[in-house]
Amino acid sequence: MPESDPRLEPLHRAMAQATLDAVAFVPGSNFLRIFGRDFHLNERPLVVIVPVHGVPVAVVPNLELASFAALDFPGEVFDWRDETGPEAAFAAAAAALPGLATAARFGLEAQRMRVFEAMALQAAFPAARLVDAHGAISSIRLRKTPEEVALLREAIRISEAALEATLAQVRAGMTETEVAAVLMRELFDHGADGLAFAPIVAAGDNSAQPHAQPRFDYRIRPGDALLFDFGASYRGYNADITRTFFVEGVSERDRAFYDTVLAANEAGRAASRAGQSAHNVDDAVQRLLEGSPFAAFARHKTGHGLGLDVHEAPQIMRGNAAVLESGMVFTVEPGLYRVGECGVRIEDDVLVTETGIDCLTAFPRELRILGGP
Amino acid sequence: MPESDPRLEPLHRAMAQATLDAVAFVPGSNFLRIFGRDFHLNERPLVVIVPVHGVPVAVVPNLELASFAALDFPGEVFDWRDETGPEAAFAAAAAALPGLATAARFGLEAQRMRVFEAMALQAAFPAARLVDAHGAISSIRLRKTPEEVALLREAIRISEAALEATLAQVRAGMTETEVAAVLMRELFDHGADGLAFAPIVAAGDNSAQPHAQPRFDYRIRPGDALLFDFGASYRGYNADITRTFFVEGVSERDRAFYDTVLAANEAGRAASRAGQSAHNVDDAVQRLLEGSPFAAFARHKTGHGLGLDVHEAPQIMRGNAAVLESGMVFTVEPGLYRVGECGVRIEDDVLVTETGIDCLTAFPRELRILGGP
Repeated sequence: MPESDPRLEPLHRAMAQATLDAVAFVPGSNFLRIFGRDFHLNERPLVVIVPVHGVPVAVVPNLELASFAALDFPGEVFDWRDETGPEAAFAAAAAALPGLATAARFGLEAQRMRVFEAMALQAAFPAARLVDAHGAISSIRLRKTPEEVALLREAIRISEAALEATLAQVRAGMTETEVAAVLMRELFDHGADGLAFAPIVAAGDNSAQPHAQPRFDYRIRPGDALLFDFGASYRGYNADITRTFFVEGVSERDRAFYDTVLAANEAGRAASRAGQSAHNVDDAVQRLLEGSPFAAFARHKTGHGLGLDVHEAPQIMRGNAAVLESGMVFTVEPGLYRVGECGVRIEDDVLVTETGIDCLTAFPRELRILGGP
Repeated sequence: MPESDPRLEPLHRAMAQATLDAVAFVPGSNFLRIFGRDFHLNERPLVVIVPVHGVPVAVVPNLELASFAALDFPGEVFDWRDETGPEAAFAAAAAALPGLATAARFGLEAQRMRVFEAMALQAAFPAARLVDAHGAISSIRLRKTPEEVALLREAIRISEAALEATLAQVRAGMTETEVAAVLMRELFDHGADGLAFAPIVAAGDNSAQPHAQPRFDYRIRPGDALLFDFGASYRGYNADITRTFFVEGVSERDRAFYDTVLAANEAGRAASRAGQSAHNVDDAVQRLLEGSPFAAFARHKTGHGLGLDVHEAPQIMRGNAAVLESGMVFTVEPGLYRVGECGVRIEDDVLVTETGIDCLTAFPRELRILGGP
């Protein structure tokens, strides 16, 4: 029976907890986790609606029907063609869900679904109240299975091997984009299926921008910090690793700056265990940074969950009372940023266990000087 | 004066045409086109609001402030920190825009902006009517400058060289993901900054899924179609190329199937010129397919615009009366798909000129058989 499709059970539990009458979701990590495959998000809406009672429906672009059939979707499918548009398919989906014709609470993946998909839903279900249920829906991915952890480990192994191979090729005088190209080649040479995100390779003053973009026109100089924030994707699972090096030498001030971030990274890993709150982990990190001579240069929370999404729950930040549970995976990535001068970030990926963490990243964290005489 | 920032003039013209009181947009291609740099979309909202009269405002995560300063943004910036959340910054932005406190029409990039950003806007501007203005806002990118065309040409040159180098390494017995890994390595070896999208490498029955995903567990067999749909990204601009080959040999039926798609590709390119409608180009392609013995296997429109986004306007499809103008770039990518057997797609990227098109892709289209004795 469609209602008992075990793939939807975690979603039904999340709906009950969040008192939702239905959830609607689009291709992406939740979709992939439930159905085992994914679609591209593009200008053609593909939306799945799962009511708390009864049979799910899906609105699917006609050209995806053959791929969609492979999902063994446990409900009705309404397809639409480019030349006619999706409105009629959404209307037919609504007609198939008469229980949602009243003021139903629809939970949406509000950090994933785009406005035009929500507008199409609202037009088909004019009485519905669309609410942000990103956390509730994504909660089905909070605790990783052993199979998921194995894939994350492989993504991390590939990433760390690629980083080591890249460092052997870095020289002062290269541009950030040249180094990034070496890193991407090495990632694919070592077995990546894709990139978790466009790698950050940032030297000198650019390292002080937390989400720096590699520059075409800056040549790396002796004394520069050189920050890598990157990850391989492997069968959908993403590594996310940051290491910061120095080129040919390091000033005493930058060494103290680095060691402060390293101590914060250690404090974050030490504070992480099942039963601890996300707030407390970030608080341990922030208190260390705030008590340092570099307190003014902290800019962001400690980390974020990691898995099929590069940024997912749990957010490791003050104010988040969520309690860590075994099987959660998140980043510990404190950083300090002296604008115009130098930034340092050291990021590890950790798996929560009953007694502490299993740190999935193994790349050494001690200050390392690249090249030089 | 902020109002006269020339970077915003195309947006102001689009607002006037669409009778919008304001537009709100997020990082992405429109943002990059206007400001010359971009940010990642993540769980931290970054939203720019441009009113039709007066000074723009931006809501920016605190950790992005240094990067944001590089934009020379012509208005007020309201930042927010992870531990407090963005609500107060949105409220302050609304207070700075009293002219929008009434039932203003806010145009959104509805295919780009996510639901949670729209919800934050609606909470800060409770009287506003949020409308889909994706087309109006993105119209600023419809006609490419010569500089943009040069970057597209380079992305395409890299892609075609990488494809040729990949084909020399393809053998029956390889998996689709192995071939995709070779292709990605070659893209970066040839100068790609990134991937336009995760490449499609699909053999045999998988080629009949228009948006196939490479399989880990299928080994390419003699007689298989082998479809590549991929592109390099170069300084933000994307190639999007499809070619379909056959491995070691081709059946007579598949040859006729291929030649039909090739004829449709030629018909689409021949129908494209300034002054022609997007409808007419697709109609020329669809009529050719509908008049063939393979009419039942057509599944999608002819193509889509291409530039900073891989899928942008103009959509080349029946029902789209938009008139082609010189400087537009789009794909011509007819395909035929016999589910469970074989798919063929041949995709070129074309630049509209006054007299016809300049076909930016040059990779040969004649049926090509890979490997074999």
